[in-house]
Amino acid sequence: MGELGFIRSVLDDMAIFVRSKYAMRDGLRIETKREANDLLTEVDLAVQEEIVARIRKAYPDDAIFAEEAGMSGPPTNRDARTWLIDPIDGTQNFVRGLFPAFGISLAFAVGGRPVAGGVAVPGKGELYLAEQGGGAFRNGERIRVSELDAIGSARAEVDFSGPWDREEILERFGRLMVEIGQVRCHCAAVIGLCSIATGDMDAYVHVALNAYDYAAAMLIVEEAGGKVTRLNGDPIHLFDDGRGVLGSNSVLHANLIEVISRGR
Amino acid sequence: MGELGFIRSVLDDMAIFVRSKYAMRDGLRIETKREANDLLTEVDLAVQEEIVARIRKAYPDDAIFAEEAGMSGPPTNRDARTWLIDPIDGTQNFVRGLFPAFGISLAFAVGGRPVAGGVAVPGKGELYLAEQGGGAFRNGERIRVSELDAIGSARAEVDFSGPWDREEILERFGRLMVEIGQVRCHCAAVIGLCSIATGDMDAYVHVALNAYDYAAAMLIVEEAGGKVTRLNGDPIHLFDDGRGVLGSNSVLHANLIEVISRGR
Repeated sequence: MGELGFIRSVLDDMAIFVRSKYAMRDGLRIETKREANDLLTEVDLAVQEEIVARIRKAYPDDAIFAEEAGMSGPPTNRDARTWLIDPIDGTQNFVRGLFPAFGISLAFAVGGRPVAGGVAVPGKGELYLAEQGGGAFRNGERIRVSELDAIGSARAEVDFSGPWDREEILERFGRLMVEIGQVRCHCAAVIGLCSIATGDMDAYVHVALNAYDYAAAMLIVEEAGGKVTRLNGDPIHLFDDGRGVLGSNSVLHANLIEVISRGR
Repeated sequence: MGELGFIRSVLDDMAIFVRSKYAMRDGLRIETKREANDLLTEVDLAVQEEIVARIRKAYPDDAIFAEEAGMSGPPTNRDARTWLIDPIDGTQNFVRGLFPAFGISLAFAVGGRPVAGGVAVPGKGELYLAEQGGGAFRNGERIRVSELDAIGSARAEVDFSGPWDREEILERFGRLMVEIGQVRCHCAAVIGLCSIATGDMDAYVHVALNAYDYAAAMLIVEEAGGKVTRLNGDPIHLFDDGRGVLGSNSVLHANLIEVISRGR
């Protein structure tokens, strides 16, 4: 079993676990949010621990870069074989939200580039997978980006992140938010990027993501025919110092960079 | 059968129809967006025509105010018995979007106030209903707003509307977008407002809605314990000249008005 098969197998199992916890959330929704947050932390940590254990067993020499529990430092050798884990991306939506806009992200990278990646969206029963050069798939079916080429009728996911990034978001994406056809915001990088891969959205922007947030979904977008770069168009090395991420259907990419360069 | 029973019966039938059309969308998703838009127009019009026909039969003397087909003028007597229809709110999401963030809205108003209202969310199999003084329900279960009282940890749905409203949205809600805990945007008034009624969101803001967009969901929010006013806190008469709408869990309402008054 190669890395992609490993990713599929791990995400299939984790999705079942997370779906059952999400169903419990519905039982807990009348209770205080405090309890819901405790539940979430518990799920986050349990998922990460299980994935880390499986990687250690299957690939004992590989580096791991993950959101929780002191594993959030990038690998010392930034080109080494590295696994990137986000146990629940879109955590707030797990606890609150009419739609299950959260996912489990697992990527395998070499030389700072994702070469295999998967995103499970347990609330929808969906599994997105991609391997470098092999195309992108949702539940086994090939997916492709849109061909839409006009900013004025395009749909962009603007990730508003936490309050700490908001002034920067309004400054950098103000012009874009005025010119783009539609704005959506689910605040989950995996949802924003996978929506581009399926052709449901045309662009995604964020001012400050961590590599484990987007490594898998970035490859899924690219293998669906899209493009993911820094906000100025620079290529991404997962462990460079960059923070901003721009994903698109590729056709719109140059236009989006130009509009973003104009700021507010 | 009173007005609420009529609303329930109409929305149950319309939801089945719309769900079947939405499933067809998935079949059409590889085709051009042009075809998808044609499908949508067809669904919008068919739903409105059917609802109008049923109202004419059951309540021949009542006024009707609806989104499509030349029915978008408010009633001449603004306090008369009036039905407000939005056949598909969140039209763009019907055609594109990972989540079925669209709904059918039907409200009955007297004296410019909704007294019975329903929202069907066919993609989730959900029906929201409320009657003045009788509480709000989702699929028969009572729903309630959140009790969250701090802007910094609240979730707000900011409706970005079409490009024509964007400069105004950034100017009026800029400060709010910086201070609020979480920002989400589904661009469907019924989704934003019903999310408050279930306790999944704490606030919803829009600069320019039509009464048929929010009449039903407004009552659902109020009957779930929340509050819906103009952006400065003024009460809403559905056929006044106001455009802005602020919905909240009630606890946050005064705070939200204050933050919004500061603009950008």
